[in-house]
Amino acid sequence: MSSRLSFKEYLKSTVAEVSKELSCIIPEHWDVPESLKVSMHYSLMAGGKRLRPLLVIAAAEAFGGSRAAAMPIACAVEIVHTYSLIHDDLPAMDDDDYRRGKLTNHKVYGEATAILAGDALLTHAFYCITQAGRKHGVPAEQLLSIVEELAEMAGARGMVGGQVADMLGEQGITQLQELEFIHLHKTGDLIIFSLLAGGRVGGASAEQLEGLRRFGRDLGLAFQIQDDILDLVGDEAKLGKATQSDVQQHKVTYPYFIGLDASQQEVERLTHSAKQALAEAAIPDPGRLIEIADYLMKRDH
Amino acid sequence: MSSRLSFKEYLKSTVAEVSKELSCIIPEHWDVPESLKVSMHYSLMAGGKRLRPLLVIAAAEAFGGSRAAAMPIACAVEIVHTYSLIHDDLPAMDDDDYRRGKLTNHKVYGEATAILAGDALLTHAFYCITQAGRKHGVPAEQLLSIVEELAEMAGARGMVGGQVADMLGEQGITQLQELEFIHLHKTGDLIIFSLLAGGRVGGASAEQLEGLRRFGRDLGLAFQIQDDILDLVGDEAKLGKATQSDVQQHKVTYPYFIGLDASQQEVERLTHSAKQALAEAAIPDPGRLIEIADYLMKRDH
Repeated sequence: MSSRLSFKEYLKSTVAEVSKELSCIIPEHWDVPESLKVSMHYSLMAGGKRLRPLLVIAAAEAFGGSRAAAMPIACAVEIVHTYSLIHDDLPAMDDDDYRRGKLTNHKVYGEATAILAGDALLTHAFYCITQAGRKHGVPAEQLLSIVEELAEMAGARGMVGGQVADMLGEQGITQLQELEFIHLHKTGDLIIFSLLAGGRVGGASAEQLEGLRRFGRDLGLAFQIQDDILDLVGDEAKLGKATQSDVQQHKVTYPYFIGLDASQQEVERLTHSAKQALAEAAIPDPGRLIEIADYLMKRDH
Repeated sequence: MSSRLSFKEYLKSTVAEVSKELSCIIPEHWDVPESLKVSMHYSLMAGGKRLRPLLVIAAAEAFGGSRAAAMPIACAVEIVHTYSLIHDDLPAMDDDDYRRGKLTNHKVYGEATAILAGDALLTHAFYCITQAGRKHGVPAEQLLSIVEELAEMAGARGMVGGQVADMLGEQGITQLQELEFIHLHKTGDLIIFSLLAGGRVGGASAEQLEGLRRFGRDLGLAFQIQDDILDLVGDEAKLGKATQSDVQQHKVTYPYFIGLDASQQEVERLTHSAKQALAEAAIPDPGRLIEIADYLMKRDH
């Protein structure tokens, strides 16, 4: 049915569905301290593109996988993304007071609760994955591979490793290669994970998973370069935040290294290459994934 | 073979084996920023009783399960325990400079790295669990239940929930029941998890797992009350830390509520009750678990 929707409708309805699921992610019978629950909920519901869940769902559906079975994993990846934002915003890290126009978690609930809400969210992501088995019969073997991949790609060699490299890099990145390492891990790994996990739920072959990995790698890098570009030349009203923050914080970006025009060309090249990887992997119904790639390239926020 | 060792020898050799495993927990081919790896390693190797891994292994062996298969899960639970200590010690939380006579993680590596090392450790714990399948053939179904239980018992309704309750409690606990909630979750849940996970690796039945759960509940509470007692009347040299810290920090403890004698009696009663639960669950070889319970009751550090 969803294939009949326009991409705009598909995007809107999928994001709404994901947000609804996320709004009741903690089982009702769980005895959780109220302040913790409220703080977790605050950041989960603070908006955002829900890009990673969208990729999980679109990848599953590209193989005819069920949206219901993909949903717990879609939630898991958004939960991991959310925890990483809460911890990134802490005074000891980026020390941000606002995110997407709302006060950051620690500004509302205090640092201690924000740290613990992040910890509880990260832990809960793994719980969600197991529920795809309990509630939707996804085989344990597949879910265990998904747990393994999330632990790799969100951990020391993945997202957290990228965050550490970013922190160290603030003392001076001199090569584009270093910036690429940060982008690939801090943002890219969770995007790749989303595609692989969705593919697994849909029953992708090893070769098809490799195609999704290549798609995700290029898409993730394009996404991050586009972020750098928007920070430089975007519309503050559409972005919901001040532009030029990278320049002001002396942050090294793609435009800093290769200029604005070459950065824009790189986004186009990577998006094309991403779609090429999909085409070569013989994925039954890649339509939505292609639309997502085009949408990200053209986005203005 | 291990059944021929005295308990003291069993304890020593098991702790040494666990520590050795923990010393090389990050796969060598992983590309992890050096400062992150060093910081994770620092806290993993900072000593401690290794009680939780010991319980995983003893529970697996009580059912004839293999130590090799239990080891990745034993490591996982110690990794979770370690991350929780790193985050607990942060300035925004307990603000501790020393733990077990060594500088805390953030005092050595800075707050940002300490937060991220904790995050990476928590994430890595789930990776370790999957390796019990990859390397030792533990069935995926069982491992997924272990993932689910760890996510429950270390998360919002478990350890992190207990930590939040403890933090809130600093504003004034008036009932023993509240203190029990904190102890049960902050310490107890991970102890229960260790026993259940070990039992699962050993092939325990649902009834036997219930016996392990009751054993763990009483053991965990006894352990925490004993901690309260040792803080009050322990030997600083043996403990490796200053006593009376709870009194100085106006922390509410079991002795505060019911007195020292009654607290000591409660430790004995709970230990007896724990062993009773084991006996009723018809566990093939509960010897080491009983010895661990007795050892914890009599410990002076």
